[in-house]
Amino acid sequence: MVNYLERLDRTFAALADPTRRAILAQLERNDGASISELAEPFPIKLPAVMKHLNVLADAGLITRSKSGRTVTVRLRARPIREAMEWLRHYERFWSGSLDRLVRYAESREAEARNKEP
Amino acid sequence: MVNYLERLDRTFAALADPTRRAILAQLERNDGASISELAEPFPIKLPAVMKHLNVLADAGLITRSKSGRTVTVRLRARPIREAMEWLRHYERFWSGSLDRLVRYAESREAEARNKEP
Repeated sequence: MVNYLERLDRTFAALADPTRRAILAQLERNDGASISELAEPFPIKLPAVMKHLNVLADAGLITRSKSGRTVTVRLRARPIREAMEWLRHYERFWSGSLDRLVRYAESREAEARNKEP
Repeated sequence: MVNYLERLDRTFAALADPTRRAILAQLERNDGASISELAEPFPIKLPAVMKHLNVLADAGLITRSKSGRTVTVRLRARPIREAMEWLRHYERFWSGSLDRLVRYAESREAEARNKEP
């Protein structure tokens, strides 16, 4: 049983690679793609793609199911949702600076209005 | 100049460690903490904390400024926002399954109503 902290470790580590993010982006457009469809756009060999798929599966970001000779890959959103919920705690840091920017813009506008004849 | 993909690599890799996430969580509550304040809750030695701070700084997640003998650490939200924007593309995968759940609950409710005398 992998706990919450370990799940976040694995999710963020899995996301720290551009090929793995590109695989997830492909699934976002074409969920249920086969492994050969997923491998097609990449200049790397199939065994390298398989290794990336293993990392994504270990992090729970994809599931693989076999039917005959075709392996179908599906996105699993739960780890992404958990990662996003973790990141959301920091949202006030940028919405805060946005608020300050809005206040600054408003004060400049008010200033400009006061200068009008 | 580090590009967008490399920034995401570094951000996600920096977030893949529980101590580094705990440091960010401390800064979320106490932005502008000193390094000794940040190191205090951890059972690891100061040099190990410094290494984690280097990784966070390389990813642009913190800034450090020195005044006399005190180093002040501040959170930098931009990489977190970029990571969240990337994850947000997958939001429909969980909101989709929530929609299906709502539709199912509504159909069961309608069924129950039709059975009322």
